[in-house]
Amino acid sequence: MTEARGKIRVAVAGGTGYMGVELMRLLALHPRIEVRRATSEQYAGKRLADVYPSFRGRLEIRLEELDARKLADGVEVVFSALPHGAAAATIVEVLKRPVAVFDLSADFRLRDPEEFRRWYGEHPAPELLGQSVYGIPELARERIRDARIVAVPGCYPTGALLALVPLARAGAIAAGPIVVDSKSGASGAGRAAKTELLFGEVQENVRAYGVGRHRHLPEIVQGLRAEGCSRSVVFTPHLVPIRRGILTTIYVPLQSGADVDAIFRSSLGAEPFVQLLGEGRFPDVRDVRGTNEAQIGWTVLEAESMAIVVTALDNLGKGGSGQAVQGFNVRFGLDERTGLDQIAAVP
Amino acid sequence: MTEARGKIRVAVAGGTGYMGVELMRLLALHPRIEVRRATSEQYAGKRLADVYPSFRGRLEIRLEELDARKLADGVEVVFSALPHGAAAATIVEVLKRPVAVFDLSADFRLRDPEEFRRWYGEHPAPELLGQSVYGIPELARERIRDARIVAVPGCYPTGALLALVPLARAGAIAAGPIVVDSKSGASGAGRAAKTELLFGEVQENVRAYGVGRHRHLPEIVQGLRAEGCSRSVVFTPHLVPIRRGILTTIYVPLQSGADVDAIFRSSLGAEPFVQLLGEGRFPDVRDVRGTNEAQIGWTVLEAESMAIVVTALDNLGKGGSGQAVQGFNVRFGLDERTGLDQIAAVP
Amino acid sequence: MTEARGKIRVAVAGGTGYMGVELMRLLALHPRIEVRRATSEQYAGKRLADVYPSFRGRLEIRLEELDARKLADGVEVVFSALPHGAAAATIVEVLKRPVAVFDLSADFRLRDPEEFRRWYGEHPAPELLGQSVYGIPELARERIRDARIVAVPGCYPTGALLALVPLARAGAIAAGPIVVDSKSGASGAGRAAKTELLFGEVQENVRAYGVGRHRHLPEIVQGLRAEGCSRSVVFTPHLVPIRRGILTTIYVPLQSGADVDAIFRSSLGAEPFVQLLGEGRFPDVRDVRGTNEAQIGWTVLEAESMAIVVTALDNLGKGGSGQAVQGFNVRFGLDERTGLDQIAAVP
Amino acid sequence: MTEARGKIRVAVAGGTGYMGVELMRLLALHPRIEVRRATSEQYAGKRLADVYPSFRGRLEIRLEELDARKLADGVEVVFSALPHGAAAATIVEVLKRPVAVFDLSADFRLRDPEEFRRWYGEHPAPELLGQSVYGIPELARERIRDARIVAVPGCYPTGALLALVPLARAGAIAAGPIVVDSKSGASGAGRAAKTELLFGEVQENVRAYGVGRHRHLPEIVQGLRAEGCSRSVVFTPHLVPIRRGILTTIYVPLQSGADVDAIFRSSLGAEPFVQLLGEGRFPDVRDVRGTNEAQIGWTVLEAESMAIVVTALDNLGKGGSGQAVQGFNVRFGLDERTGLDQIAAVP
Repeated sequence: MTEARGKIRVAVAGGTGYMGVELMRLLALHPRIEVRRATSEQYAGKRLADVYPSFRGRLEIRLEELDARKLADGVEVVFSALPHGAAAATIVEVLKRPVAVFDLSADFRLRDPEEFRRWYGEHPAPELLGQSVYGIPELARERIRDARIVAVPGCYPTGALLALVPLARAGAIAAGPIVVDSKSGASGAGRAAKTELLFGEVQENVRAYGVGRHRHLPEIVQGLRAEGCSRSVVFTPHLVPIRRGILTTIYVPLQSGADVDAIFRSSLGAEPFVQLLGEGRFPDVRDVRGTNEAQIGWTVLEAESMAIVVTALDNLGKGGSGQAVQGFNVRFGLDERTGLDQIAAVP
Repeated sequence: MTEARGKIRVAVAGGTGYMGVELMRLLALHPRIEVRRATSEQYAGKRLADVYPSFRGRLEIRLEELDARKLADGVEVVFSALPHGAAAATIVEVLKRPVAVFDLSADFRLRDPEEFRRWYGEHPAPELLGQSVYGIPELARERIRDARIVAVPGCYPTGALLALVPLARAGAIAAGPIVVDSKSGASGAGRAAKTELLFGEVQENVRAYGVGRHRHLPEIVQGLRAEGCSRSVVFTPHLVPIRRGILTTIYVPLQSGADVDAIFRSSLGAEPFVQLLGEGRFPDVRDVRGTNEAQIGWTVLEAESMAIVVTALDNLGKGGSGQAVQGFNVRFGLDERTGLDQIAAVP
Repeated sequence: MTEARGKIRVAVAGGTGYMGVELMRLLALHPRIEVRRATSEQYAGKRLADVYPSFRGRLEIRLEELDARKLADGVEVVFSALPHGAAAATIVEVLKRPVAVFDLSADFRLRDPEEFRRWYGEHPAPELLGQSVYGIPELARERIRDARIVAVPGCYPTGALLALVPLARAGAIAAGPIVVDSKSGASGAGRAAKTELLFGEVQENVRAYGVGRHRHLPEIVQGLRAEGCSRSVVFTPHLVPIRRGILTTIYVPLQSGADVDAIFRSSLGAEPFVQLLGEGRFPDVRDVRGTNEAQIGWTVLEAESMAIVVTALDNLGKGGSGQAVQGFNVRFGLDERTGLDQIAAVP
Repeated sequence: MTEARGKIRVAVAGGTGYMGVELMRLLALHPRIEVRRATSEQYAGKRLADVYPSFRGRLEIRLEELDARKLADGVEVVFSALPHGAAAATIVEVLKRPVAVFDLSADFRLRDPEEFRRWYGEHPAPELLGQSVYGIPELARERIRDARIVAVPGCYPTGALLALVPLARAGAIAAGPIVVDSKSGASGAGRAAKTELLFGEVQENVRAYGVGRHRHLPEIVQGLRAEGCSRSVVFTPHLVPIRRGILTTIYVPLQSGADVDAIFRSSLGAEPFVQLLGEGRFPDVRDVRGTNEAQIGWTVLEAESMAIVVTALDNLGKGGSGQAVQGFNVRFGLDERTGLDQIAAVP
């Protein structure tokens, strides 16, 4: 077995769902990564390029069945795009080897086992919850450098926390609920065959779901609590007929005198993957589609002591696989843009 | 000039824009209406059925140039789907005749000339502002019966006020801004050829616009003020890639003890065009598309003392031409469902 | 059990798939029909209005489990929107009662049992095949009047045969394959939860399927053979990202001197549900969406001795449930437009 | 003014239309290209990154007004994404300098001035028509190496000729018209604000246009004539509601004994940007979206002596800017994949 010189060898668990195939795409194009193995429940035994033809000539591997004990064989990193539950069971096994893990499921995002149980049921390895790092590099770069498990955040929390944590750290958020109203594309719900995700159900339709009790709410709250902000958060996700992308509109009660512009510029102004559009200009989802970028615009309503902050990201990019690769770059000391030097294709 | 027995003769100003053609469709199918005349800036001189083929055999008329002095000739009712500004100038002339006017523009919606000027510029006939009735039948049925001018509300305000006015009347709204977050289809912006409305700009995109300062905000505020509710309203419209429909998510601070369920059931439970989905069930835009129906669902977050109310309507239906026809039915003492007995086509 | 005076009582088998719910919509709005019963495999026991809220107040029935022996109880007509196979088994039982049957599946469309077997497998009641009438009213109006079983045609064949049969009857089709290239919306594939019909698979995508061997090909060929036209037909269906509608582009080798314009005008010019756009004007799918109308445009390429004919219809309307109701009207001597007086909602 | 070592300096005329911005994206990501200048009629004076935010940090230039005399200053290559007419007038001036030109308009595609006049009107420099190379690298690689002007083909002709030229060269095409039926996304029509390209007109719609007389027909015919194939071609483009991509279904009369499989494998099997899916498998547009790849599938109908060949490409990629960059790589002796190492983002 030859080894590509200078490349870091990785394995992927769950490489053919929507999150998984985007991960495969990014890994295949990453100049410092060699994908040694990828599993697929649905397509084990097939060539990746037979399932997704555009991988032909770019990543010629055969998809395997998941075997947690062998997943880490000969690799330094395991990425998991398995569903929650399946992910933890696999990762517990994987961690017996000296590998780093990037998990795209919810299994290592909540630090409190009680909180995990309330939203997802019993955790198979609650003792590991404390070992993971919640992996938004802009907010936790240093801790990712040493992480054994990087819990790649949910798509919605990234769009909320990128805006809210800087405001919380600056003490800018006043009392009263923070309202987070998100509009997401259908790929966020995965590729399982469900009636409610059929084209005929999603096209020309908009609907709210999980109103007030979506599983991503505790991630947002946990992120704020970690910064000492105990404001309540009201979160409503909506499904809109786009394939990829999330627009999040955040209504934040502001402390008097809070300088939103200065807070964002000092906290995020130098970030390679965050673009501040500034006061009065708001992002289009299409301008971040297919990339690892988040764009943020805002306005302050003086009379209401409220900021409206709008963030846009690709739920499979900065809200998922892109962020995982960014975290990988941080973890392995690479330039953070490596393999992520994208420009959104317009239109 | 023969007269259809038992039919009310109407004229339409602006019958080929998106709002206008939906109005034409509803009028053509209305059993008690005879469309005598329709104008079109773009298609004057053409047969309606040559512009929109599906009218062939249903409404065989030739589109005319707008002549305000002749618009009311031989009709009892004038519907205007002209843009604001043009509408008022025409209606001032039309009102010299004994006709009722249903205006789909903004020109007669705001009662305060100062407020109108701030959002739209100088009004050509401010003295008429006080004569119009803001025409949401569920909220102003009695006043519509005698109205000379019915100002058919904007698409966004209908979705907000249908939910907020009952809560305001019941004194259920507590202090703190009401957040109104709307997701609208592209037809709400009309049929003018603008780059930002091209398929290539709207498809696979979501964006906020007019954040905090959209022209429909003062209509919402006026509607609440009229009920003695002086809460501030924060309104953010978003453009989503659907042709028709608006989903509005409303975050309302609640007085303690407010019984949202009871308030909606007593105020709207008997309405023919409002469907209360109840606590914990939320509407899909597709279930009201092509109809005059509004659907409302809600949940109450006890810890946050907040109700989340979600309303769905078709911006060209209950949010426009459908509501105009419903108002017409009220005004002329017809069964309110006449010509509006629709079931949404699914999918 | 009271009976609505003057109404014909019907039962529906399979009322909640895409074809079924459109049928329910049309039946609910039909002034001479009373829906007494509707079955649903997925939603038996639920109120129709709980599954599809827009039926509230229009058709208040509870969905039932399918029991073929009771389906015809107390009704004069049974509509079936069951899948093929299930339909025939049910209809065999239903026909023990004196009812008329309108079947939207393929089970009674092909007259030759051998041909049926080749495409669908063994037929449960091949002796009934000869009793059905292939129900395109424009082409078989007289035979529908006496039919016991009306086999409502497939969506693709209607779009092809409406154009080809008049040309075949006029002897206008020359040697060489007829090419039929269709573009269909996703609802044509039904509402079953399949990965390939997910929004994420259909949106921003176009694909051909069943190339040269789609099950609707033998229906088209049978329709031409019945007119003595033995030309071969090459048929390629495509899936395009719309919910409803089919555009069919037909390339027909023409006999020299064939007057396409005259042929269409004499054969279809008086049809209430066919609109001839004429030479050089071609239909938009959106202009027939939600209706029972077919629109036809054409051009003749003299140098190539070929006509290009383009037809548009709604696969759930004229290509399905609308055509079933039109056939019902013919069968029961009603005005053919009864319950089908629709105008396409634009946009 | 410093010069990037080892980079080829280029200028772009028309960098903000749909074709232009995709060109800018590819050039910005190309490791051997330095974009020195880009013009925009609509946005001259603005930063590119202010018009298209995702260019921020990737290509920081200010858009300029077009001045044909200065366009070639300090560059070795000029790309033009100007509309036809404007392109030729500019390129005539540009060619006074020692630069290579890649023109994405129609102005240098037809070699016969008479033919050009018939479709586009008088050519400003007919004497240059003979100097250009019609730039599909797979079909004309050698001639591109020496070209002064590369006429980048229209989006439709690429999808047709990639399949038809190999068959023509092999003498496999029998008598009878070749039918080319294409389904294209809306970006093919450009970014000009036209009513018929509004979201409300394109969404949930399909239509044929330019039936039998689209301007891309003579390019297809010219390409076949150049190979000695004089078969007639019947071409129908259709607009489908996708942003990017063309699926072309080609019906080719076959000589008896023609081995389609062998022909495609020998002619295109080694091409880096053509993927042969083989007999009985057909491409999805989504699998080439955002890339320079073309995918081809086919089937042979023995009874009809006909091949059905289906090609998929991105009209802005292999059907436009991607092909221009591929041609650039050929012209300058670079690896053909340079800057085009893409994998389609799914979903």
